[in-house]
Amino acid sequence: MKISLLGGTGDIAEGLVLRWSRVGHEIFIGSRSEEKAKGIAAGYIEKLTDRGIKPMIHGMPNVEAAKESEVIVISIPPEYAVSTLEGVRDSINNQIIVSPVVPMVKRGKSFFYTPPSQGSAALEIKQALPEGARLVSAYHNLPAKELSDIDHDLDYDVVICGDDDEAKEVVKKLTEEMPNLRVLDAGPLEVSYMIEGLTPLIVNLNVRYKPQHFSIKFV
Amino acid sequence: MKISLLGGTGDIAEGLVLRWSRVGHEIFIGSRSEEKAKGIAAGYIEKLTDRGIKPMIHGMPNVEAAKESEVIVISIPPEYAVSTLEGVRDSINNQIIVSPVVPMVKRGKSFFYTPPSQGSAALEIKQALPEGARLVSAYHNLPAKELSDIDHDLDYDVVICGDDDEAKEVVKKLTEEMPNLRVLDAGPLEVSYMIEGLTPLIVNLNVRYKPQHFSIKFV
Repeated sequence: MKISLLGGTGDIAEGLVLRWSRVGHEIFIGSRSEEKAKGIAAGYIEKLTDRGIKPMIHGMPNVEAAKESEVIVISIPPEYAVSTLEGVRDSINNQIIVSPVVPMVKRGKSFFYTPPSQGSAALEIKQALPEGARLVSAYHNLPAKELSDIDHDLDYDVVICGDDDEAKEVVKKLTEEMPNLRVLDAGPLEVSYMIEGLTPLIVNLNVRYKPQHFSIKFV
Repeated sequence: MKISLLGGTGDIAEGLVLRWSRVGHEIFIGSRSEEKAKGIAAGYIEKLTDRGIKPMIHGMPNVEAAKESEVIVISIPPEYAVSTLEGVRDSINNQIIVSPVVPMVKRGKSFFYTPPSQGSAALEIKQALPEGARLVSAYHNLPAKELSDIDHDLDYDVVICGDDDEAKEVVKKLTEEMPNLRVLDAGPLEVSYMIEGLTPLIVNLNVRYKPQHFSIKFV
């Protein structure tokens, strides 16, 4: 598939790009600056080429990356997610949008989930998208380090939610191409706050149980 | 230890009573009606006696059960938790209070976490307790059915939080006496909303993935 990662640096973007490239997907790295996007893309290409993988990875401005793709992953810090999406709104037609966005703050030694007034980052993002956009909330709780080590099997669950069953099915397939992730569908987009709230909880456990990098499994 | 379960029926109470009785703790079942409490206690005693275990289980009004014990588990529906605690307030001195309380509503096919204005059930309960009461938030996500089958090992994590380290240590010990539960301490009581919010998420998964009864493991 053609997958774009808006703001393709940081956190989970690297692991997703490397793992999806390995199984043959075409990746579009979006950034506000074309130069930056091309630089990031070049870095990923080099990493994969070194491993004998010939990736299809392109760097371009966010607007173009969004236009090119069938699936758009918003890998942008929470505070810029909505404004970035508003900026690419005209490029969004019937693509599937994936939001791993989790707003949180640190107070004292702990992190706290701070949902916007809409109830969750996913619901806020939905408002910023054109009517009928197919939004799936996913990938909030993947540990970035383990994800980017592409020889490391990920024995975790990915809880997703959304209002479009077909879109969720696509995200499930893309996710389960990364061994050994399992997708669990928690229902409509409205439940996203309960998935997003897990991330700061896991961060707190990681801080307290260093050097553990926890993710989650439903057993 | 002397452990009381206020409102000792329903959900996780049975499993806790049976499992703690088996390892020798003394249990005080509290209810609004003494008769009801004694009836519940008799039921648990019979179940354990049938298995050759001689339990110490007593039924009594909530106020007395609270007074007798070192640890008080609030196993009361969310809507009655605060009023019950206000009713036993004068019996609370330096006992450890354990809140597994999770307020939620069903809308459509999904369950939603509905925290009170204080931010979480735990913070609301804290307000209802005397100053300095030692409150630990725990046991929100244990599957009741598996818990009450006392020969079934529970390969789950119990995430707890609270502001009193000594109280958390006691709850950790009591919990890990039930094989093979592992306690993870997520920090201060203020983080409880992120633990409580997991319960309706799990309930939603249970509804969608019947007959699974999910609990959680951090891996």
